[in-house]
Amino acid sequence: MSYDPSTGKSNTAKSNTGRSLGDKSLRVGILTGGGDCPGLNAVIRAVVRKAEREYGDSVIGFKDGWKGLLENESRLLDIESLRGTLPRGGTIIGTSRVQPYMFEDGVARVSDTVRRHSLDALIVIGGEGTLSVAYEIHKEGILPVIGVPKTIDNDIACTEMTFGFQTAVQIAVDAIDRLHTTAESHHRVMIVEVMGRHVGHIATWTGIAGGATMILVPEQPFDINEVASILQHRHETNRYASVVVVAEGAQPIPGTFELPDKEVDEYGHVKLGGIGSIIASELEKRTGMDTRVTVLGHIQRGGTPNAFDRVLCSRFGVAAIDAVHEGVMGEMVALQSGNITKVPLGDAVAGLKGITDELWQTAKVFFPPLPSD
Amino acid sequence: MSYDPSTGKSNTAKSNTGRSLGDKSLRVGILTGGGDCPGLNAVIRAVVRKAEREYGDSVIGFKDGWKGLLENESRLLDIESLRGTLPRGGTIIGTSRVQPYMFEDGVARVSDTVRRHSLDALIVIGGEGTLSVAYEIHKEGILPVIGVPKTIDNDIACTEMTFGFQTAVQIAVDAIDRLHTTAESHHRVMIVEVMGRHVGHIATWTGIAGGATMILVPEQPFDINEVASILQHRHETNRYASVVVVAEGAQPIPGTFELPDKEVDEYGHVKLGGIGSIIASELEKRTGMDTRVTVLGHIQRGGTPNAFDRVLCSRFGVAAIDAVHEGVMGEMVALQSGNITKVPLGDAVAGLKGITDELWQTAKVFFPPLPSD
Amino acid sequence: MSYDPSTGKSNTAKSNTGRSLGDKSLRVGILTGGGDCPGLNAVIRAVVRKAEREYGDSVIGFKDGWKGLLENESRLLDIESLRGTLPRGGTIIGTSRVQPYMFEDGVARVSDTVRRHSLDALIVIGGEGTLSVAYEIHKEGILPVIGVPKTIDNDIACTEMTFGFQTAVQIAVDAIDRLHTTAESHHRVMIVEVMGRHVGHIATWTGIAGGATMILVPEQPFDINEVASILQHRHETNRYASVVVVAEGAQPIPGTFELPDKEVDEYGHVKLGGIGSIIASELEKRTGMDTRVTVLGHIQRGGTPNAFDRVLCSRFGVAAIDAVHEGVMGEMVALQSGNITKVPLGDAVAGLKGITDELWQTAKVFFPPLPSD
Amino acid sequence: MSYDPSTGKSNTAKSNTGRSLGDKSLRVGILTGGGDCPGLNAVIRAVVRKAEREYGDSVIGFKDGWKGLLENESRLLDIESLRGTLPRGGTIIGTSRVQPYMFEDGVARVSDTVRRHSLDALIVIGGEGTLSVAYEIHKEGILPVIGVPKTIDNDIACTEMTFGFQTAVQIAVDAIDRLHTTAESHHRVMIVEVMGRHVGHIATWTGIAGGATMILVPEQPFDINEVASILQHRHETNRYASVVVVAEGAQPIPGTFELPDKEVDEYGHVKLGGIGSIIASELEKRTGMDTRVTVLGHIQRGGTPNAFDRVLCSRFGVAAIDAVHEGVMGEMVALQSGNITKVPLGDAVAGLKGITDELWQTAKVFFPPLPSD
Repeated sequence: MSYDPSTGKSNTAKSNTGRSLGDKSLRVGILTGGGDCPGLNAVIRAVVRKAEREYGDSVIGFKDGWKGLLENESRLLDIESLRGTLPRGGTIIGTSRVQPYMFEDGVARVSDTVRRHSLDALIVIGGEGTLSVAYEIHKEGILPVIGVPKTIDNDIACTEMTFGFQTAVQIAVDAIDRLHTTAESHHRVMIVEVMGRHVGHIATWTGIAGGATMILVPEQPFDINEVASILQHRHETNRYASVVVVAEGAQPIPGTFELPDKEVDEYGHVKLGGIGSIIASELEKRTGMDTRVTVLGHIQRGGTPNAFDRVLCSRFGVAAIDAVHEGVMGEMVALQSGNITKVPLGDAVAGLKGITDELWQTAKVFFPPLPSD
Repeated sequence: MSYDPSTGKSNTAKSNTGRSLGDKSLRVGILTGGGDCPGLNAVIRAVVRKAEREYGDSVIGFKDGWKGLLENESRLLDIESLRGTLPRGGTIIGTSRVQPYMFEDGVARVSDTVRRHSLDALIVIGGEGTLSVAYEIHKEGILPVIGVPKTIDNDIACTEMTFGFQTAVQIAVDAIDRLHTTAESHHRVMIVEVMGRHVGHIATWTGIAGGATMILVPEQPFDINEVASILQHRHETNRYASVVVVAEGAQPIPGTFELPDKEVDEYGHVKLGGIGSIIASELEKRTGMDTRVTVLGHIQRGGTPNAFDRVLCSRFGVAAIDAVHEGVMGEMVALQSGNITKVPLGDAVAGLKGITDELWQTAKVFFPPLPSD
Repeated sequence: MSYDPSTGKSNTAKSNTGRSLGDKSLRVGILTGGGDCPGLNAVIRAVVRKAEREYGDSVIGFKDGWKGLLENESRLLDIESLRGTLPRGGTIIGTSRVQPYMFEDGVARVSDTVRRHSLDALIVIGGEGTLSVAYEIHKEGILPVIGVPKTIDNDIACTEMTFGFQTAVQIAVDAIDRLHTTAESHHRVMIVEVMGRHVGHIATWTGIAGGATMILVPEQPFDINEVASILQHRHETNRYASVVVVAEGAQPIPGTFELPDKEVDEYGHVKLGGIGSIIASELEKRTGMDTRVTVLGHIQRGGTPNAFDRVLCSRFGVAAIDAVHEGVMGEMVALQSGNITKVPLGDAVAGLKGITDELWQTAKVFFPPLPSD
Repeated sequence: MSYDPSTGKSNTAKSNTGRSLGDKSLRVGILTGGGDCPGLNAVIRAVVRKAEREYGDSVIGFKDGWKGLLENESRLLDIESLRGTLPRGGTIIGTSRVQPYMFEDGVARVSDTVRRHSLDALIVIGGEGTLSVAYEIHKEGILPVIGVPKTIDNDIACTEMTFGFQTAVQIAVDAIDRLHTTAESHHRVMIVEVMGRHVGHIATWTGIAGGATMILVPEQPFDINEVASILQHRHETNRYASVVVVAEGAQPIPGTFELPDKEVDEYGHVKLGGIGSIIASELEKRTGMDTRVTVLGHIQRGGTPNAFDRVLCSRFGVAAIDAVHEGVMGEMVALQSGNITKVPLGDAVAGLKGITDELWQTAKVFFPPLPSD
């Protein structure tokens, strides 16, 4: 194999099928992994459009993420088969959380599928988990890989934005716009739990855009007593209601109170719907205020992408297939300074990207004053 | 008092202030009771617009529903004070579930407030509970009352539609449109719990409009084993995902399984968020299928009314103040055959309106076939 | 042919293929005619779902309306082919304004196609024009016909609502909600031209729901000088901006001013975009106020149907195929008193349904006072 | 005056009132100029929130842009007066296109107002025109100025995004989503004219996100014959309809055809609604294809800002008041690399920012192939 994963460049410009990557006709695999996310089809459509029309490539869509490579389930994707998919949520090639390293012979099976299809490169659309696997596959030299950063959580490093994030935020803000009047009509505290297991991007953007009273995020552990006392002070000094946005992964400051053991799913992730209810009940206990919980759940990750995400996905898809033909591999397409660029996959999966201090300070401008203020 | 509650007509055309109800200048109270509902402000705005400009009335808004009459808290409403409120959710005069019959001296206090304000009539905007109280107040001869049917549940008799209902349905359908792709991408069963404690209007409309797989409503007790077996059969014979809409008040057929005791709120109402989770867990137990729950909760009752509700509210408001001036009292404005009409309050609160058989049969056309089919 | 168009009943319960209409297995044609309208696919889907699963019928979709019957272009529609179409705008079987009576041999060609396909009945989804043709075909005894009332204009008689109308109104109201702030920021008169060539349903509903300043409809010819003087008075006495909703077919009172000759399309219809600009320029001329025009155009008739229309379409579709099996022909499904019923096609196409006086009086409550008030 | 406009720094940290800019209590003016834009209130709200609570400033809102400074019309803005304005379109302090350099004594009158209010600084929210005036005022040393880049056109240099732009794009994409089905049902060419007099940001983003067939922008003059032949070829080789997005300021290649003289408004700007109709008529002439025009007009600049813009506005507002207290003047807050930063006003107004080549190349990937391809 002439491709050198350590540099991420195929200097000889020869793919593992012996054909030059710069040529006009490659065989490119594509897969979508991890959770549902608005815009997956828009990326696939952009890849196929440019690949077919400009380069004359064949694009092979693998079914249900890495599973399709493990079990050799795929279908040829052409422009015609992608018609009408730009605004459609979900992914027409399916997704799953299955991946090669779950199986002893996983990598061998993937290699086998790569060989059978004479794949020159693989475009992997996924979040941190899926891209980490892609990076391993790349490092093992199985085949050249280009990543596309997908996650509604916006927590992938080296890109200012992942696709799906803006749509998720908009959905949550639409919900909060509606909750305000209910909160006001009944002088209530409304807790809105949004996605974000490890980072507070969705919660912070949603909170700022939704005019939330307070925001609780994983990056900033909270003191439940302080939250209670701020809200109580607010409701005592005027009649306005409160809307508190809570990220799924919000954490109490150790020692203030303990989260009960929560149900975890097959991948060790805490199931949705926990923290919001817990906080609501702790607040009611401490303040006596009428408190209600809304868990937006999977609504945040389904359905049509908004305009921002559709454009980002289209640009990412075009850049991904261009990168394949430039022979630049082991990289991830990324948004930096408003432009589409490429970054090493290894850097992108080295750690999660949290919210910036500037954003958090902006959010806090809109929090209520402390009782002592 | 010249007004005769038994006939609902003030034949002498004299109000309790001694002025003729047909006159151009009355003092009319208005209140909004019960839960938040899109369109409350639109009704108030219509009442005030016609009252002030055409009749020269004074409209007094009582704060937080019946509480404002009990505690004599009110403010004068004029056209200027209603500017910009047509699209706004909530109610600018507040609402509560407090009502006179909760207190020994409640009716006396209401009478006192009526007298202090020299009220000629009271327009009561509310659901079954609030309107029942209005009917009692009317029967006791405290003052002439006109009801306006408000509830997102659409369960008030004698009117084809209540306001707030179409908005609630649209919100739930928007959510389901998004859930479909997530369900499909992961081959899941998504349970969507919508409002509807006693009736299945929201669930049935939402289910039909959202393309739900099945719908569970209070009017049609369900057999959990049958639901499980239909869904399992469906997922075994093709790969489509399922979205099941469950009304908050859906009930199992006695003997099939028991709902656990649920938390009830201060008014004896089951708290939100129960039945959906219970059904999800029972389905997972029986089928092993990956099942997730979304509880739309208060999002369904907040925020801007849709176009249908804004028109209905405007028509109801105009009709209510017209009814006051026609001297027709103890009635409720209603939508019948596409026209605004009036019905006796007593008839309207005599019982809840459930879904029709035609609607339910239409809904069932889209359910999956039974395994034996 | 055993079917008797004069009664609209096939008393012998025999279709023109000799099979009983009550039988479980018929061959039913379906077509969509006239302009695009949200919900067409939802009707087709409902027809097919019930026809295939409950009756075992074959449903044949004719392409591009009557054109498909003239040119014998069709395809078999089954449940599988309708998946995912409930929320989708447009019509999967196409539409056109071509119809048999445009051609000398048109009826003969339709008869021929009916015979080739052994059609037992035809479900025709269309507006006044398409349904009138259906009525003629029915009267000529070509085959039994059931109509489904489709038009965003809501002008078909004998049904309280046509499908597509509520969606069109919502789209226009969303636009007006946005125009208000622009009007206010610049103290402008915004003219919004909406569809409605012969009737003012869309304009009136949109105007009431959008909080319009004034509404001009075909049913109520306007005096441009009066409109100008009302608006001028309003802007002189306070700083509020104005939004005027104008139906495409709004007409000046004869003698007040003349509409210039307008471009007409191939069917003699006035092309979109005329009246709004004319009124704007006449108002500017008379008042000097800054006036802008928005023409919503085809946005009003495309895209996903709202929840109301999806439910109405599903009910109409089920009722239409049920009617075929009941042997009740020459009728149109209709919404009356909130229920789905059937009315004679002849009655439905006898004349257009205008807005009611009650609705118009409600709309006028929100118009500005006359200068003399 | 200790403030030195040539450096943009008040090195002595003294404002023109003699008070230190770093002090906790300044008097800060604010104005909004130019056309309506979603998010204006969100900026004002953020400025006031931080100014009042953290710095103890007084914020004075000048009415209708520079006009308020010319005529000394203002009102004190406090947190209470901004309640509920985050999601509201328009500007609560009004806007206009009036500016000091229109009047001989304009600058003197502004200076006078500055002195009367003892203003320490002025926050100017506007587009290229308004900010250019702000830069002049700053250079003349009238008072320290901070700019906030507002325009739905996204054409201001030195910032990756202006606020209002993402909302405008989303509105246009929602419209196009609806037009697709109408275009398809009737095999039509739909022309959609969007805003963008000098640059094609809105058109290009809208076109990519809306799945447009072609996009015409000011930066890339078009050959009408080529457009016609591409569309004709497309419609001849398959039956798909076409949606063409045209920026208001799209220009033909000189010599291909001449735009007729168009109406211009009081500021020399071409009035809306011209180019779309011209192109439609030229295309019909050349191809005979049925072509319709939609002009979105002011809908694009009114109403509630989307989530992206609400966050951007909140960050801009906080950064603007922070900049005032940092004593950094003659600058504009800007978005760069996802962070909020500051750039010299002079650089920002030195020239308009057009679309990047990468974005345009991405857009062209989705154009139809040339007939010769």
